[in-house]
Amino acid sequence: MNHEKTNEQCGKQSIRFSNPPVIISRASIVGEMEGKGPLATYFDEIEADPTFGQESWEKGESEMVRRAVSLAIAKSGIDKEKIRYIFGGDLLGQLIGTTFGLKDFEIPVFGLYGACSTCGESLSLAAMTVAAGYADYALAATSSHFAGAEKQFRFPLEYGNQRPLSATWTVTGSGAFVVASSSSNQPMSGYPHISAITTGKIIDYGVRDSMNMGACMAPAAADVIYQSLYDLSMKPTDFDKIITGDLGKVGSEILIKLLLDNGINIEKNHMDCGVEIFDNSEQDTHSGGSGCGCSAVTLAGYILKKLDEHEWKRVLFVPTGALLSTVSYNEGETIPGIAHALIIEQN
Amino acid sequence: MNHEKTNEQCGKQSIRFSNPPVIISRASIVGEMEGKGPLATYFDEIEADPTFGQESWEKGESEMVRRAVSLAIAKSGIDKEKIRYIFGGDLLGQLIGTTFGLKDFEIPVFGLYGACSTCGESLSLAAMTVAAGYADYALAATSSHFAGAEKQFRFPLEYGNQRPLSATWTVTGSGAFVVASSSSNQPMSGYPHISAITTGKIIDYGVRDSMNMGACMAPAAADVIYQSLYDLSMKPTDFDKIITGDLGKVGSEILIKLLLDNGINIEKNHMDCGVEIFDNSEQDTHSGGSGCGCSAVTLAGYILKKLDEHEWKRVLFVPTGALLSTVSYNEGETIPGIAHALIIEQN
Repeated sequence: MNHEKTNEQCGKQSIRFSNPPVIISRASIVGEMEGKGPLATYFDEIEADPTFGQESWEKGESEMVRRAVSLAIAKSGIDKEKIRYIFGGDLLGQLIGTTFGLKDFEIPVFGLYGACSTCGESLSLAAMTVAAGYADYALAATSSHFAGAEKQFRFPLEYGNQRPLSATWTVTGSGAFVVASSSSNQPMSGYPHISAITTGKIIDYGVRDSMNMGACMAPAAADVIYQSLYDLSMKPTDFDKIITGDLGKVGSEILIKLLLDNGINIEKNHMDCGVEIFDNSEQDTHSGGSGCGCSAVTLAGYILKKLDEHEWKRVLFVPTGALLSTVSYNEGETIPGIAHALIIEQN
Repeated sequence: MNHEKTNEQCGKQSIRFSNPPVIISRASIVGEMEGKGPLATYFDEIEADPTFGQESWEKGESEMVRRAVSLAIAKSGIDKEKIRYIFGGDLLGQLIGTTFGLKDFEIPVFGLYGACSTCGESLSLAAMTVAAGYADYALAATSSHFAGAEKQFRFPLEYGNQRPLSATWTVTGSGAFVVASSSSNQPMSGYPHISAITTGKIIDYGVRDSMNMGACMAPAAADVIYQSLYDLSMKPTDFDKIITGDLGKVGSEILIKLLLDNGINIEKNHMDCGVEIFDNSEQDTHSGGSGCGCSAVTLAGYILKKLDEHEWKRVLFVPTGALLSTVSYNEGETIPGIAHALIIEQN
């Protein structure tokens, strides 16, 4: 665990890793709707059964997590016993998707909740852990399920409510990533690596519309992107893409405007996983996809593939979360946002 | 951020810190019931109003978190701006207690969910973060609220259900801790420090009784205590106390028996925060206290005081969590447990 260089605290919220952790394998498992979308060919598995062969949507989500984690471990070629920690979370109350999905792996678990930013949170902590020498390998896993999330946050599907155009569609998907120390024994060239992270603050602009999550999260995304560029002395053109998690069309427009107001133009290289994952003209998903799984499977399937193929060299990956529960919403609370940024690059 | 020695991975699940992070301040805020219990004099604030001056129990919990964090920062003497991360969580769906309690601090947040083990999870990650040099100061904050938790997990209070003797009473309380790097500039002698941590796995013995959380969590506590002793080559008598979070009386008996079956006797120095915090003969709390706040305020108020006064020199602190939601429970799932252990010592 000797590091020649030391990791560096940058500015107020960022860390630059001296030996950037590498993502040595990843897995993406999605539902039928995602399997009919534009990114379908990039995913490892498409499951037509919304309960994944189980008795309920929630048990189905756990099964999806279990499969994604198993596949990521299998693809890594690393013995399960060498993976020292799992950092994982989902949208369901008390993280039941994650708990029951991970419980049979017998690996120490840090349960996380960052709403739909959890993929960024889990990868940040996994990267911090291996870069500090606390583990040679750590796993980050995140999931969401359309039907389970709708039932919990909005209306039961059977109610058949109309969805406004600003609403997003929760992605059924789980992404899992094995993150390795670049000082571990395996040769690490050729793998995408996490060179820096910026951890987000909770940002509350007072938005209260649970059918417009993009507007709730855009200020948090703008804040963490601004801070990441500032802390790490980067500019938008240093990135092939600046990729938000699930702002959707409505939230993306707000993000671009908020950053422009602060002198930062990301219009040309911004991409949103929620916008990419569905074809709105065919799939009627309105503002786009959302959920922890949205950014996780888009990273695991699509973004890392683009880096593998050297089509992109460096991206700023920014999963975005809306912090609410039905209780907080019904008690009249606002919906604050949070977002975490990671610089992911390929040599 | 130079460390002369390096932190050490020990065994399968533990880390020994070369420069142990120190807890430079802590705050404990509790409700009226806890303020009538045996530990009352140890807490910083006792609030008679169950909504903490707000409109609902949930908003009250957030206010309690806000006050605990503010007080811990004030007592640390450190500028808020120097605290680089908050690791926090609570029991409510989507962590609304934590979110709304932390949102005005403008400090980067990692949201955590480990059920009632969250105090151990948050302190572990805060310690890992400062010991790695990622921050000079990090804050760990945890909370629970009796009425909010009963409403969410069991029955509304107005229903007036009978509670079996194995049931525990969720503590209304929030504990917050400022954790500092021992390589930061401040003189660190005299503060309790976290010398090692053991991160728990999810352990499922198939228990399904949500009115007997102690039985759900005891196997996880036994597992992490066993692993901690093994990984770090310690024995029970190396500790003045081995302190579980909220097993209560019923769970504590199971824990002691499970460890005895594995050749480890902790009977003489075991203590459970849930057993200590209420006087069952006077307060009718049955098996004891529970909730994230239970271990957090007992650590902040009582345990660290005993270390300050050199009555104890070294403790193994093991918050315990039961992983369920009403959805998982009603769908017939088991209630797995998780527990995280920290060695906290005083020079």
